[in-house]
Amino acid sequence: MKAKVHVTLKQGVLDPQGKAVQHALAALGFTGVGDVRQGKFIELDIAEADPAKAKAQVEEMCRKLLANTVIENYAIDLEG
Amino acid sequence: MKAKVHVTLKQGVLDPQGKAVQHALAALGFTGVGDVRQGKFIELDIAEADPAKAKAQVEEMCRKLLANTVIENYAIDLEG
Repeated sequence: MKAKVHVTLKQGVLDPQGKAVQHALAALGFTGVGDVRQGKFIELDIAEADPAKAKAQVEEMCRKLLANTVIENYAIDLEG
Repeated sequence: MKAKVHVTLKQGVLDPQGKAVQHALAALGFTGVGDVRQGKFIELDIAEADPAKAKAQVEEMCRKLLANTVIENYAIDLEG
């Protein structure tokens, strides 16, 4: 089973990486670009075939390693 | 209009960051975790309201700044 995890900064947390991208886009001549936020996207191959168990396992991975839950949110999508 | 961009390494390109996550998960006791690939997830607010024009604009951003098309693929989703 494939798990896709999005880790994004929580609302209100400063995102210097996103701001750098925003300024770089403006410098390249792209107009009308508002807020830019950058996050992480992680794809995992999981041996667990049961969707409920797989989701619980990936949630634990997010809490323990993949996301810093003080400042980041995570979202999990399971496939196959 | 909101654009969501996924930038991922192409098949066959080594992903040391993903490998590090994979080993860290194993060290934490998570079993049955196969390949792990890490990419970037970028959310942009675009002033352009026409979906076709917005998509073309974001594609240009990907080619010029957001992705290194030699080793990375990008996927664009538009919302709103």
